[in-house]
Amino acid sequence: MAKQQGLTPQSTDFSAWYNELVYKADLVDLGPVRGAFVIRPYGYALWEHIQRELDTMFKATGHENLSFPMLIPMSYFQREAQHVEGFSPELAVVTHAGGQELDEPLAIRPTSETIIGELYAKWVQSYRDLPLLYNQWCNVVRWEMRTRPFLRTTEFLWQEGHTAHADEEEARAETRQMLDVYATFAEQFAAVPVIRGEKTEGERFAGAVQTLTIEAMMRDGKALQSGTSHYLGTNFAKAFGITFNDVHNQQAFAHTTSWGLSTRMIGAIIMSHGDDAGLVMPPKLAPHQIVIVPIARGNDEDAKALVGAEVDRIAAELRTAGVRVKVDDRDGMSPGWKFNEWERKGVPLRVELGPKDLAAGTALVKDRLADDKTAVPLSGLVEFLVEGLGGFHERLFQRALDFRAARMREVHSYDELVEQVESGFAIATHCGDPASEAAIQEATKATVRCIPLDGVPAEGSVCVHTGRPSGYPVKVVFAKAY
Amino acid sequence: MAKQQGLTPQSTDFSAWYNELVYKADLVDLGPVRGAFVIRPYGYALWEHIQRELDTMFKATGHENLSFPMLIPMSYFQREAQHVEGFSPELAVVTHAGGQELDEPLAIRPTSETIIGELYAKWVQSYRDLPLLYNQWCNVVRWEMRTRPFLRTTEFLWQEGHTAHADEEEARAETRQMLDVYATFAEQFAAVPVIRGEKTEGERFAGAVQTLTIEAMMRDGKALQSGTSHYLGTNFAKAFGITFNDVHNQQAFAHTTSWGLSTRMIGAIIMSHGDDAGLVMPPKLAPHQIVIVPIARGNDEDAKALVGAEVDRIAAELRTAGVRVKVDDRDGMSPGWKFNEWERKGVPLRVELGPKDLAAGTALVKDRLADDKTAVPLSGLVEFLVEGLGGFHERLFQRALDFRAARMREVHSYDELVEQVESGFAIATHCGDPASEAAIQEATKATVRCIPLDGVPAEGSVCVHTGRPSGYPVKVVFAKAY
Repeated sequence: MAKQQGLTPQSTDFSAWYNELVYKADLVDLGPVRGAFVIRPYGYALWEHIQRELDTMFKATGHENLSFPMLIPMSYFQREAQHVEGFSPELAVVTHAGGQELDEPLAIRPTSETIIGELYAKWVQSYRDLPLLYNQWCNVVRWEMRTRPFLRTTEFLWQEGHTAHADEEEARAETRQMLDVYATFAEQFAAVPVIRGEKTEGERFAGAVQTLTIEAMMRDGKALQSGTSHYLGTNFAKAFGITFNDVHNQQAFAHTTSWGLSTRMIGAIIMSHGDDAGLVMPPKLAPHQIVIVPIARGNDEDAKALVGAEVDRIAAELRTAGVRVKVDDRDGMSPGWKFNEWERKGVPLRVELGPKDLAAGTALVKDRLADDKTAVPLSGLVEFLVEGLGGFHERLFQRALDFRAARMREVHSYDELVEQVESGFAIATHCGDPASEAAIQEATKATVRCIPLDGVPAEGSVCVHTGRPSGYPVKVVFAKAY
Repeated sequence: MAKQQGLTPQSTDFSAWYNELVYKADLVDLGPVRGAFVIRPYGYALWEHIQRELDTMFKATGHENLSFPMLIPMSYFQREAQHVEGFSPELAVVTHAGGQELDEPLAIRPTSETIIGELYAKWVQSYRDLPLLYNQWCNVVRWEMRTRPFLRTTEFLWQEGHTAHADEEEARAETRQMLDVYATFAEQFAAVPVIRGEKTEGERFAGAVQTLTIEAMMRDGKALQSGTSHYLGTNFAKAFGITFNDVHNQQAFAHTTSWGLSTRMIGAIIMSHGDDAGLVMPPKLAPHQIVIVPIARGNDEDAKALVGAEVDRIAAELRTAGVRVKVDDRDGMSPGWKFNEWERKGVPLRVELGPKDLAAGTALVKDRLADDKTAVPLSGLVEFLVEGLGGFHERLFQRALDFRAARMREVHSYDELVEQVESGFAIATHCGDPASEAAIQEATKATVRCIPLDGVPAEGSVCVHTGRPSGYPVKVVFAKAY
């Protein structure tokens, strides 16, 4: 058992705080290959809850899961010009297998548009075969130079949805629908407020006509792209021959989409909610929603047994109420040690129960977002806790909304923009010129995170950088980003 | 939409039947890389149900999920002598990544004992850290020369459990517990009867002290190894340094186990239950437990609407009762075409409802295991179907048990053995000599599938091949195998 150690305060050094916390909260460990991390049970349990909720939403919107092979012939990447340019530098390549050199090297999928395009071409013959609405949960590999747990790793877990449609309108509606699924998930389950928007041309997925994104604000004021949904037009259909006989018996290319959300969402949760004491888990996704720590020291076995029986009763009632509850009755650790651990691991509510509490007919309840503890009568404890969990989600989401509101504002000059992106998001008019975007990034490290779907009209304003007319109907969001 | 085509009868050519059915029932498709198959939605839905039920059982026995990286330094395989010998010939090797040649080549995991051993060595310091009870759901790659969908593929999906314990007794109990979990799953969910047993030395997992297996009989009388559980002794603990301070403050090596069940289980389900008409899905794992086909041809829109409304009502009631129901209201296909498709896909119960049925207040119910249809009053239909599903599992399991009983018998001479393994399992006394086992395999293609845990005592009998005393306390199971 590793010793508990202090955590660099978030306010002192956000980056050090993150890098320490992911290990000290038992979310990850280092693997032997640079940039490929072990996701430990506490981190993986969070991912399982993310998977379950998203998967339910995918199925409710008519999607089915399937599984494509991981190894893709290198030649497939050549078929879509932008795609190969975007992904070739990051590929991990299998050249030998079964003791022999392969005739054609195989890439480990960095994303699966190519191999899926090949199969969709076979599956789609008639308009009656459309739409194809499929998703897969899998691992992908992208050989990144600078890696950080959850945020940028050489291997990561994700889901990738891939759909094919008879026309542009339907494919664009699907692209938007899945963005909305991601946004709903982020806000209603992860308690992470997001801005829905479109990426500028330079930030689009390699091969996409349109990339939609959800962007969240971390507690250092930086942005984290947390899920993307792409309208691919007929680019991949043309590259892989996804054609069909339409209702008029004419050959037509399918319109395809893809959309993905990865273990990066865990990074979003850590950096949206965490504080100096550690993680704060959104209750709907928390591995443990409530932890109960029985407090009975020394050798009074009768007192221990009484406390233990009451703890078991409370835990059983909570489980019956559908609550994920952990009883921490480990020997050899002080209650204070345990409190610290569960605060660091971000369990929303903690219950402490000792002989004195039992005698008084109460338990102490500590809320991860509050400083003090509340004595709650045992008779109403379960009800209090269940209500507390519901309210916890709302308070956590509101806190994140308030934080973002305080760190996001419209700016009307380049100087204001430069200052604002030091600590948050700047809403500004931009001309849309990639050269101007690059110059701003060079000077400030901030980029256009997105063109918001429900943004402030840009009419009547000019670009804060070039003074030229706006390149978009709305003001865009500038921020530094992970 | 592909045309429906005939299926080679199972009795005519079992192998052709299987190879056609996996495609014609939409379970798989060919991928671009030899031996790596696409699992299509209908096949993947079956896997999702397998995952859900097994995962629940793993968690109920105290295990947690996590995720290890897929790429393993080649040098790791050298550390356990038998393991490297067993797996090296099958490795797929990444030599280049990010546009550069790697300093050390990386293998795609064929199984994860090595990388997990490395991390467990770090996580285990004291007896207080034990046991570690972890599992992961993932993909693995083994470069096989001859491949068949689900049975032997270059990439496959599976779960691999890996546990570490303070002593041998506990580790052996875990090994046995997980075998029992697999057997319970196979029989109670997949309706596949299995023999629990131990592998002979030659058939053990590379690096294991003991390999336990569940062996199922396919409908051609061959055996399919459907799940294995290994006691690894201290082999991997010594290779990777998994040591701990025991209760007496002495350094000790941990005892480890591993256990795995893969998409091969889908092959077991296909070949245990399927018949000339196609698949027969065990209801607890079936993607669709019931299909309802509304029958309303021609242009009588009023009749269609009435039938549609009643079908929707029945489907909604079934869903409320927790049944997975599919309404097949596709246009442009005859009812007969649909009936064939759902028979081929093995849906346990089919409901047919047309205007005449509606007028008579009944629906026709077709059971996948029966030849004729039953007219059931609409008022009691849902109850009839729910009961039917429960009974279906029992009948399917009993049918498989009866089939196995008819094809498995004790043999008392080598001639009898040779004849018996042509069509089923032979229970025979064997001396345990690997040379004799090899000679029998050479002559008959049959191998010792397992030494049953609850076998027939071998006392008083001699080896059917060598006439020497039995090498095991019980008679062993000989069969040809996949």
